[in-house]
Amino acid sequence: MSDQEAPLRNGVEHKIFEVLPFVDDDYGGVIVEMKTPMDTKTFVAALRDSFEQWRLQGKKGVWLNLPLSHVNLVEPAVKEGFRYHHAEPTYLMLVYWIPEAESTIPLNASHRVRVGAVVLNHNKEEKYGSLCGSGIWKIPTGVVDEGEEIFAAAIREVKEETGVRRSIYLNVNQSTINIYNLTFSYIYLQIDTEFLEILAFCQTHESFFAKSDLFFVCLLRPTSFDIQKQDLEIEAAQWMRFEDSASQPITHKNDLFKDIHHICSMKMEKSYSGFSKKPITTFFDDKLGYLYLNKQEDMEQPIS
Amino acid sequence: MSDQEAPLRNGVEHKIFEVLPFVDDDYGGVIVEMKTPMDTKTFVAALRDSFEQWRLQGKKGVWLNLPLSHVNLVEPAVKEGFRYHHAEPTYLMLVYWIPEAESTIPLNASHRVRVGAVVLNHNKEEKYGSLCGSGIWKIPTGVVDEGEEIFAAAIREVKEETGVRRSIYLNVNQSTINIYNLTFSYIYLQIDTEFLEILAFCQTHESFFAKSDLFFVCLLRPTSFDIQKQDLEIEAAQWMRFEDSASQPITHKNDLFKDIHHICSMKMEKSYSGFSKKPITTFFDDKLGYLYLNKQEDMEQPIS
Repeated sequence: MSDQEAPLRNGVEHKIFEVLPFVDDDYGGVIVEMKTPMDTKTFVAALRDSFEQWRLQGKKGVWLNLPLSHVNLVEPAVKEGFRYHHAEPTYLMLVYWIPEAESTIPLNASHRVRVGAVVLNHNKEEKYGSLCGSGIWKIPTGVVDEGEEIFAAAIREVKEETGVRRSIYLNVNQSTINIYNLTFSYIYLQIDTEFLEILAFCQTHESFFAKSDLFFVCLLRPTSFDIQKQDLEIEAAQWMRFEDSASQPITHKNDLFKDIHHICSMKMEKSYSGFSKKPITTFFDDKLGYLYLNKQEDMEQPIS
Repeated sequence: MSDQEAPLRNGVEHKIFEVLPFVDDDYGGVIVEMKTPMDTKTFVAALRDSFEQWRLQGKKGVWLNLPLSHVNLVEPAVKEGFRYHHAEPTYLMLVYWIPEAESTIPLNASHRVRVGAVVLNHNKEEKYGSLCGSGIWKIPTGVVDEGEEIFAAAIREVKEETGVRRSIYLNVNQSTINIYNLTFSYIYLQIDTEFLEILAFCQTHESFFAKSDLFFVCLLRPTSFDIQKQDLEIEAAQWMRFEDSASQPITHKNDLFKDIHHICSMKMEKSYSGFSKKPITTFFDDKLGYLYLNKQEDMEQPIS
């Protein structure tokens, strides 16, 4: 092509394209990842050259990942037509859609995911986590991290919350537990648990700016508890009789608490099936994941 | 206090605090929302004055919401110590944690939520959505929007996907359907459905940069279909015999497809319970939401 063969045209040196560092994505677009510092003027020139090439190549979406250290490039990028897509503490992701056709850029993450963990031992006692406000016991709850399995988050939260000194109360006389009248000692004790089922889950909205919230109620059983008890020669009083936990005023005041306790009651009678986990490979891309479904193992036994 | 009574001290006019527009949040912090344009110099001065006041008032987290039009303030904000928190196309949210104590700033949304919709009619036929690749039929799937109920997203996706001309195939002779050998007509037809249950759900990771993915498999039944059929005097061939859909090669190749079909088989025999929806008020803030739990209505009937 004559244009490309002529470095000089009209007496001006033909432009050598200076493109930004990028990789192709799987959807006909490119991802620009800025690694080395760049002044805004060089950036804008390289960006415009890059766009010339990307348009010729029929590229669609252009993702621009700007680490916090490249904050000087945010304003010029927006002025060149980029829009924000998402951000994490250390970077801002911007995006530009080249084609005339409607954008197929995927939406940003929309939900925060949390777990609440009910730990029931074989004595039909329920492990309660931290004391919340005055005299109200709550199950351990916490946020599921990016990349974390729901069941793993439940196990972690139980371990973390029971590992906090102030949330552990010990009943040294081994009598029936009434947490409100106990004189308790503090000790650092972590409970290991095994995930059994997701009993139910709850979706709410605007929990966090415009973001929605999914709260998974998980049922676990202790695995390390007995060993720890022997070592310490004590009975841990964070085990609360199920009936006592159900009779807390907050349980009656709140729909979700009431439902969780009702489900737990049914579960103890083997008349409720939640969703168990099963490792699988997924639809589209053969990724590993976990499917949560009703395995109905308990239901196979006669309902007592 | 003498300092405040003396506007002039050492011959210099005492500084009048120029704070940025802010509102208190519910957690001891403030939210700054920039509405009018501001040059960077004025912004930095006002920000520093604001911080003096916020520190005196014992404020904790400072949220700074910068609309796209205020992109000029991103770099100065970061240089003053702000970090990115999250971003949407039209704004960037930054955050600054004032206290010495560990930050309790909530994590950003971590999950994208999607639905897949299985629509079964009373003839044990399954509605399949769009043709994906060559000869493979998939159930309608789509992303749940911020603020959208999971069950509503499933209903919407069925309506949207069946409303697309190319995804509707009609069997005019009303015989047993084999979608691969049909000569079909196109017609615009939207299917209204009613949500029955979430049959199962799947969690995967890194589906979208570092974000995780939750995919809910929903069971629905048609509500408007029969009426539409009468109006049009035709049998819609997007109804696929359940056995035919189960025998597609992709169903055998993929764990998740296999499991969904197995669950649907059990469901048709009334030997499977998914999670139904129930409106509730939530734990902490009496927000309205939906709890998905095993209502076991079908299980109350004898298993056929």
